[in-house]
Amino acid sequence: MSNDLLLSTPDVTCSAILPITILSSGKALPGRKVLSTELDERLSKPEGWTQKHSGVAYRYHARIDEHQSAIAAEAVHDALSRGGIAPESIDLLLSTSGVQEQPLPSTASLILDRLRLRTGTPGFDINASCLGFLVALHVAANLLNTSAYRRIAIVASDLASRGLDWNNPEASLIFGDGAAAVIVERGDGSRGIESYQLNTWTEGRKYCEVRGGGTHYNPRTGAQLSDYLFRMDGKRLFRLAASVMKGFLAELLGKARRSLSDIDIFVPHQASHLGMKHVTERLRMPTNRVMDIYATHGNQVAASIPTALHEALVTGRARSGRRVMLIGTAAGLAVGGMVLAL
Amino acid sequence: MSNDLLLSTPDVTCSAILPITILSSGKALPGRKVLSTELDERLSKPEGWTQKHSGVAYRYHARIDEHQSAIAAEAVHDALSRGGIAPESIDLLLSTSGVQEQPLPSTASLILDRLRLRTGTPGFDINASCLGFLVALHVAANLLNTSAYRRIAIVASDLASRGLDWNNPEASLIFGDGAAAVIVERGDGSRGIESYQLNTWTEGRKYCEVRGGGTHYNPRTGAQLSDYLFRMDGKRLFRLAASVMKGFLAELLGKARRSLSDIDIFVPHQASHLGMKHVTERLRMPTNRVMDIYATHGNQVAASIPTALHEALVTGRARSGRRVMLIGTAAGLAVGGMVLAL
Repeated sequence: MSNDLLLSTPDVTCSAILPITILSSGKALPGRKVLSTELDERLSKPEGWTQKHSGVAYRYHARIDEHQSAIAAEAVHDALSRGGIAPESIDLLLSTSGVQEQPLPSTASLILDRLRLRTGTPGFDINASCLGFLVALHVAANLLNTSAYRRIAIVASDLASRGLDWNNPEASLIFGDGAAAVIVERGDGSRGIESYQLNTWTEGRKYCEVRGGGTHYNPRTGAQLSDYLFRMDGKRLFRLAASVMKGFLAELLGKARRSLSDIDIFVPHQASHLGMKHVTERLRMPTNRVMDIYATHGNQVAASIPTALHEALVTGRARSGRRVMLIGTAAGLAVGGMVLAL
Repeated sequence: MSNDLLLSTPDVTCSAILPITILSSGKALPGRKVLSTELDERLSKPEGWTQKHSGVAYRYHARIDEHQSAIAAEAVHDALSRGGIAPESIDLLLSTSGVQEQPLPSTASLILDRLRLRTGTPGFDINASCLGFLVALHVAANLLNTSAYRRIAIVASDLASRGLDWNNPEASLIFGDGAAAVIVERGDGSRGIESYQLNTWTEGRKYCEVRGGGTHYNPRTGAQLSDYLFRMDGKRLFRLAASVMKGFLAELLGKARRSLSDIDIFVPHQASHLGMKHVTERLRMPTNRVMDIYATHGNQVAASIPTALHEALVTGRARSGRRVMLIGTAAGLAVGGMVLAL
């Protein structure tokens, strides 16, 4: 996808922008606030150990009776309510998560059942691990620009707590549950996606995994309980991500014909303490231009980027006329980014 | 989504068609051909019982060491090879399945690792149960028409055999494994999607399920082995699908400004004996205008529609200048259809 593609398209004329307007955003958190001190006790560690090692002060975990689709529906309701948007004006629901509520049917179906949209409103799932929201936002912009749909709700939700291996601090202490949503339209064409880039570096496909629950590791193939838990090789993941990030950023900015100084606010995936620090240093950004909700939410998988974006929008740090960069890495290893003019 | 939306879009001018061209298609089947007579023996039934009850003569099931992503990659290779298409010309891989190979990372990542596309080629998953290919084809058309990508590979794969409950004939004897792929471009605008419709009727969300393996039923929430198996309430599913199908078809055809007689060939989801019979009767179609590969493939979940489309293309029943209708139902309950001018 070269730069000229975004400038000489046959159908999107007179603009390098792929138009999209965020009408409203919302978020939802499950009921249980888990302090790092609670995890210190659980893991028989001295007070302060979990916070020091994870960088998280607290995160929210779903109770055993809470459903992913319910929390996702709550985030959509929050977005509709904040925007004063009629539920029946939504044409399509896009759902995204690192791990779905259940393999079949789509999580979108389960969320739709909890929303009071028009009867028959369609929905489907887009899954790209921690970058699902970024991909869904891009897909939505494309659907809106061919007028396939007029108003789309995108919701990202994850309950990472359901698959954490508490014997592995690196892969368990950093995660929080949650959901976030946006309602989008095409708008008048004056704002939208200045550039978008997604790459997959498959040598990293085993650095971040939940193996159990699909066609590979399941009861029929002899899967063990441990196969259903999240695994991460943080060092290799970080090394691979760091090695491709500079070139990735140059391409993303080049396509938008922007430089880093044109970006008003960065909304990175809230991957980890080290990951956030690395992004901030790599971007040579003053911390006040980087959305950092990690210490109070943890890594919320697919819900991280939209939750951070929501916080940026409701605090006014991201607002009309400003330029936002969404950026992150995901299992795969995928690297994705978007320059978005609000 | 009303009819005028497809006629008065700001960006797709001078045509009610959403342009897309299928350059090539391919399919792959796993190694083990399972005759219905073999299942008769396995279930201690008289010879002929399985074929009579399922309508399937044989289907293919993956051996325990075969991977979904390998079969999917084989289908993409087949499509590339049949079309004489250079792997490095693919910009994006869209993967779709009823059930993924594993929850994390995306199945697209695992397939990309087995293909020799350009390093960094992006991919993601679209999940809409048995309608995933239909949705992915529509998403691809949208991505191509904003020039986000130039050439996309779409692959649908499912290994239903990994989740079959052999104690439940209705929900086990009808399924076969497999994968199918298409390579698509925008083309010159003369051919493409005349209409597309997807609806979700969530009162049917429990009629077709694989519960285990997501955040709801898993080891942490006390899931049992049986939770990982496919469940179906065929009667209710059929009744709900039948009740909405007439209105759905009228809307799909109305948007395309076509009647049933304008459709040269129907490619329905190969859901079941009864489902196929019902579609043919509902459409009042001579059977030679309906692609029926059910008896030799079974219901291949998301891979059914593209495998049937591939068979239609390679036999010349679907070819340039002809109009195809893709149509089906899926867990959710979702109903989807597309009128496609080839």
